[in-house]
Amino acid sequence: MGVIRALVVDIDGTLSDQNRVLCPSALQALRRLKVPVVLSTGNTHCFTRTVSVLLGTPRIFIAENGGVLSYSEDEMEILADLKVCEDAFEKLAAEFPLQKYNSARYRFTDIALQRTFDAKAADKRAQELGLPVEVIDTTYAVHIKDKRIDKGTGLIRIAKRMNIDLGEFAAIGDSNSDLPMYRLAGFRASVGNAGPELKQDSDYVAKAEYGNGFAEIINYMNEKGMF
Amino acid sequence: MGVIRALVVDIDGTLSDQNRVLCPSALQALRRLKVPVVLSTGNTHCFTRTVSVLLGTPRIFIAENGGVLSYSEDEMEILADLKVCEDAFEKLAAEFPLQKYNSARYRFTDIALQRTFDAKAADKRAQELGLPVEVIDTTYAVHIKDKRIDKGTGLIRIAKRMNIDLGEFAAIGDSNSDLPMYRLAGFRASVGNAGPELKQDSDYVAKAEYGNGFAEIINYMNEKGMF
Repeated sequence: MGVIRALVVDIDGTLSDQNRVLCPSALQALRRLKVPVVLSTGNTHCFTRTVSVLLGTPRIFIAENGGVLSYSEDEMEILADLKVCEDAFEKLAAEFPLQKYNSARYRFTDIALQRTFDAKAADKRAQELGLPVEVIDTTYAVHIKDKRIDKGTGLIRIAKRMNIDLGEFAAIGDSNSDLPMYRLAGFRASVGNAGPELKQDSDYVAKAEYGNGFAEIINYMNEKGMF
Repeated sequence: MGVIRALVVDIDGTLSDQNRVLCPSALQALRRLKVPVVLSTGNTHCFTRTVSVLLGTPRIFIAENGGVLSYSEDEMEILADLKVCEDAFEKLAAEFPLQKYNSARYRFTDIALQRTFDAKAADKRAQELGLPVEVIDTTYAVHIKDKRIDKGTGLIRIAKRMNIDLGEFAAIGDSNSDLPMYRLAGFRASVGNAGPELKQDSDYVAKAEYGNGFAEIINYMNEKGMF
């Protein structure tokens, strides 16, 4: 196990509680960290930028499940196509009771939906129809996203820009949308509320849930001399 | 002194430190509060909404110095005119080295500028030119805002919507942009880093600065049985 030079960290359910409220223990753990933290989320650029301001993390982050990357306060890259998601939305809305979140006005590439329908069935249907999208449930929202991007494709570009090897990243998350970055990182850890698939792919699973789990993971990594 | 039924609270410098990072003590104080907290800031709707998600405060808040109000997740009201600010920006940019912040893409009514020029002189000049704007320095950014709105005009509408008397609000802040809400609230308290004008208008001034000052104010209000 090499030295970890950066973290890539999910927000909802990993730094926040089940109501999306930030856990004080996670905030404190972040403030003690000496390595850069790349936030990685399905949420919008504007949401993620705000979180990075409040947490004091760099303005380099992954938003919209990899559809939007921020490299600095001034530089943003859009890597996915809202149009394919809009087309898929229209087709799927004929068969499933889809309801968009209001954050739509701030989204560039992906569509966030309320969890009012069977996301797995909708994804299956999208694949049957040959749509170039995925329908994923992060347990906070369901996203229709361009198939070509995910948190992993985002991490590859971010790591290159930071000049840090993928294997020098530790990935921390709670939902299946984090799997593509787990496959790339040198170390993966999940909070206690993570799903079984993610836990199985983890090098360490916190006993504590949500932000307390994140703080536990940082303690563990410190104790193991990973930084 | 009547009972306080709601707080109206500035963000930058009041809940955050000088680098705009959230103070853990402020987060913890917020989580213990039993009354609703209305965030009130010069920042954008999207920024403020995100802060309300992370802090667990209601989606009723004042953004863009009163130019944009949110009443719920689904309802937003725009009360000021970006065009008058854009016109003023063009006129003032001929005389002052104005530099917009990148958050411009998320702004509806006001222009946020980097603090690279004399804001007082620019405001004086705007008044000489008879422009219908104010130029205000919050110590985090300089704003060109529609003169007809401020955090006070925002609070009046929000209070009405919440069916809470203005006198039942406590206002907590750190900069002159908070003065218009101080003039309306039943109780005003300032963090230790607040400017002299604001401190003079305060019923209580915290010894501690930034988020620690906010936590001190909440403790003080609790001790005095104000809730």
